[in-house]
Amino acid sequence: MNIHGKNFIGNELSALSGTSSNLYDINSGEALSGDFYHATSDEVSSALSLANRAFLVYKQISQNKRADFLDTIAEEIMNLGDELVVRTMSESNLPRPRIEGERGRTVGQLKMFATLLRDGSWVEASIDTALPDRQPLPRNDLRKMLRPLGVVSVFEASNFPLAFSCAGGDTASALAAGCPVIVKAHSSHSGTSELVAGAIIKAVKKCDMPNGVFSMVHGSGRTVGQQIVMDEAVKAVGFTGSTLGGMNLFDIANKRKTPIPVFAEMGSINPCVFLPSALNDTKKLAASYAFSITLGSGQFCTNPGLILAIKSEKLEEFKKDLATEITGTKPAVMLSRGIQESYETNKDAAIKQHGISIIAQSLEKNSISEGKPVVASVDAVEFINNHKLQEEVFGPYSLLVECEDAKQLDAVVSCLEGQLTGTVMGEAEEIAQYSDLIYNLENKCGRLLFNSVPTGVEVCHSMQHGGPFPAATDSRFTSVGSGAIKRFVRPVCFQDCPTSILPDELKDENPLNIQRLLNSEYTKSTV
Amino acid sequence: MNIHGKNFIGNELSALSGTSSNLYDINSGEALSGDFYHATSDEVSSALSLANRAFLVYKQISQNKRADFLDTIAEEIMNLGDELVVRTMSESNLPRPRIEGERGRTVGQLKMFATLLRDGSWVEASIDTALPDRQPLPRNDLRKMLRPLGVVSVFEASNFPLAFSCAGGDTASALAAGCPVIVKAHSSHSGTSELVAGAIIKAVKKCDMPNGVFSMVHGSGRTVGQQIVMDEAVKAVGFTGSTLGGMNLFDIANKRKTPIPVFAEMGSINPCVFLPSALNDTKKLAASYAFSITLGSGQFCTNPGLILAIKSEKLEEFKKDLATEITGTKPAVMLSRGIQESYETNKDAAIKQHGISIIAQSLEKNSISEGKPVVASVDAVEFINNHKLQEEVFGPYSLLVECEDAKQLDAVVSCLEGQLTGTVMGEAEEIAQYSDLIYNLENKCGRLLFNSVPTGVEVCHSMQHGGPFPAATDSRFTSVGSGAIKRFVRPVCFQDCPTSILPDELKDENPLNIQRLLNSEYTKSTV
Repeated sequence: MNIHGKNFIGNELSALSGTSSNLYDINSGEALSGDFYHATSDEVSSALSLANRAFLVYKQISQNKRADFLDTIAEEIMNLGDELVVRTMSESNLPRPRIEGERGRTVGQLKMFATLLRDGSWVEASIDTALPDRQPLPRNDLRKMLRPLGVVSVFEASNFPLAFSCAGGDTASALAAGCPVIVKAHSSHSGTSELVAGAIIKAVKKCDMPNGVFSMVHGSGRTVGQQIVMDEAVKAVGFTGSTLGGMNLFDIANKRKTPIPVFAEMGSINPCVFLPSALNDTKKLAASYAFSITLGSGQFCTNPGLILAIKSEKLEEFKKDLATEITGTKPAVMLSRGIQESYETNKDAAIKQHGISIIAQSLEKNSISEGKPVVASVDAVEFINNHKLQEEVFGPYSLLVECEDAKQLDAVVSCLEGQLTGTVMGEAEEIAQYSDLIYNLENKCGRLLFNSVPTGVEVCHSMQHGGPFPAATDSRFTSVGSGAIKRFVRPVCFQDCPTSILPDELKDENPLNIQRLLNSEYTKSTV
Repeated sequence: MNIHGKNFIGNELSALSGTSSNLYDINSGEALSGDFYHATSDEVSSALSLANRAFLVYKQISQNKRADFLDTIAEEIMNLGDELVVRTMSESNLPRPRIEGERGRTVGQLKMFATLLRDGSWVEASIDTALPDRQPLPRNDLRKMLRPLGVVSVFEASNFPLAFSCAGGDTASALAAGCPVIVKAHSSHSGTSELVAGAIIKAVKKCDMPNGVFSMVHGSGRTVGQQIVMDEAVKAVGFTGSTLGGMNLFDIANKRKTPIPVFAEMGSINPCVFLPSALNDTKKLAASYAFSITLGSGQFCTNPGLILAIKSEKLEEFKKDLATEITGTKPAVMLSRGIQESYETNKDAAIKQHGISIIAQSLEKNSISEGKPVVASVDAVEFINNHKLQEEVFGPYSLLVECEDAKQLDAVVSCLEGQLTGTVMGEAEEIAQYSDLIYNLENKCGRLLFNSVPTGVEVCHSMQHGGPFPAATDSRFTSVGSGAIKRFVRPVCFQDCPTSILPDELKDENPLNIQRLLNSEYTKSTV
């Protein structure tokens, strides 16, 4: 395995810096191959100016050709073969099936966007034809569609080294939208990123895409990341990670000469409301929630970190059953030493809060790099009065909030911050009775689930992965699913535009055969 | 005419403050009826808490009932009869036909949103049905649609006392979206706002809408406005006005505990590129541009404040023809003394810049409250190097930038800030030759016009009124046209949701008969 550690400045490799960093296998402590050169300010500038020039060409490339480009990236990622899987495993401590699954999702996302582009209807084309004889004033010919924003800056996530990283959802959706991308590689899986970036550059060349449509740089968020986000060439930012990191980018982006949107997906504790009827089968419920809480060592943004229920004998049974499940769980290695340390610190701080009781802890750890599952409980009044209990503990931790009655349950929902997901467990008739509470919960989240666990995010048209602040900086957009492309476009109206200049999507003959809103009617017909 | 000057706190009138202000007729200097009581902090809090409670009810009201509500508001505005027209004329100094036209547009906007709601398809419903047998994992039933954000704060505009004010586009689109509205009345036309607010409250009662779905308060932006935008109940802000005012709200909104979107439509100088062939008929061109520059005393956000052209004999002819047109123009009274004073100050500052030559000034003013039309010219190099020349002079002022050649013309386009509109004048074949320049201009604006003047904004589906910063704070949205409703909604995904809780838009039988994306296909069919 030959990892060069260089930056991808458009199609060129570059390593001008004297500063570099290495990676170690968290388990063995052995050094992994590759010195990763932190990009210099000049290298970052070159990537930005290449991207800016590439935009003028790339935005004019047809949707079909962009689709071919995305498919080719997917192919080139698969062509990396087992080398990619092995490297990602050693950098992330994630097991083979998870990495293979994640590679499948990454490639699947690229292909989904390719399919979306070939269909073409996502551009929301709208045509109002001229009414020259209208009184008192004629109407011009007006045609609107979504057009790319410009260069997009993508920050890799630590917990999805493939699906939310170099060629992950942010990159795939930005490239699909017609935007060049500059990726800031994550320092915990830089080798994985290098392999994937190499695959993307192969696709750039194969598909004859403009040099600069893709770059990837190594370095710290404070220097390299900040330089990218501050640059006027950049028109949007995609980020998945901590609230601190996301808000730092958000603040920088809003203080620029021209503010830009930052799509930061940050913390979420994903409240799960157990209505009384949910507790009919406490064993089954406990098994499914213990599984979801500890899945991937709890390192999912949709991990069920909060359970809300009304006190009852059945709830006591559930607690016992959950304790049995958790006590028998084997701790798993976390993504990195940093994440494992944060987990211990945050979990310890959480369980030291006033009124917290431990329901159960897992088996003891076999190695320091593991994260030990813990579930705790607290009274509703304590929860409402202590905002600290709403802070995400990233890892296999969950808190049960015990309410006196339905009214108090509603009060707890009312005090919640914004979330990615909200879950309701209960039988259909009881759900109908709790409609006010459920619509209250809806105001707090992006996805509302019923009788399921929040982990597991489907990549499809109807997915919403994003929610009210602080779960995400902008609840109006999603980072997963085909809707993710909408983050990197804006509507442009063409008034009385000659056919020679008009994008194909808006031409009279509808050459792409897309769905359009033509004089207030949805149709694929010609003008 | 009986103007009470009170605040509308939900359905109640309230005047608890000792502070009030009056309005004067700018022409006669005579006091207009009405002492306008600045809302107290308690009154604002009451309006906010009523709105927050109203949201939980209002968001569940069907689209059809919301449509009836909007239609009733339109009716009640018309029922105000000539009293409204006369009051608006004396507060705005705008002539009767303009006010009657603007009332028509205001009522038309309300009815357009009612029609949009009755059609219902705007919610972007998307359904991916369950695949229980899918391998390796089943797919849940996922259904997504746009749902209202919550309470919206609307700031009235000075230049559209009806169409961008109390029941203007922001209010109409927010109410249509399912969001309660709190309007901060503009101090220059508070009586107009009171009459319209009264009409809205009549409609609230007639349609049995929840108390608090609409409130309107008087007072300063610094106190009353800031209190509203800081309040956690408020989820979005609509604003049309100065860059200073818009950016102040934008900064406040981003520093809140939970940042919220601010849709501020601010300054734009609306560049118009004259390709050489546009100068074939200089007389006609000069007449149409002189008309557009001086229309409504230049107080339109799409006023053509910048003309870009390549030096030629024909351009000299155009300058002479434009001078003839402008010199013969009669100055008109501006919206308010404040706006007239700002115009004089900004225009004087602009024409004192290095390298500026006056092409023409209009006839002398008959009264101090008029704004005197002025057109000036400058060399491209001066323009590129002096950013001050890109600042909007709100009023009947326009600047011609003279370029040496096509390359310099492109350089001028490249240095432009974001704009609401960009216009290209020229014959079709020449336009095709300048495609690179035109796509460059597209990056700078929200609407790209051909062979027209930018003034005149159609209210329809395909309109985009908004553009890259600083024309607007968020280029991805429009404040005019049916798309304006998208500012006040966010997608919510319902996973495995029981029918009893599922919104009608997402039900199997498609009871509203709306367009949906059902398993990747656009259709009105049932599931």
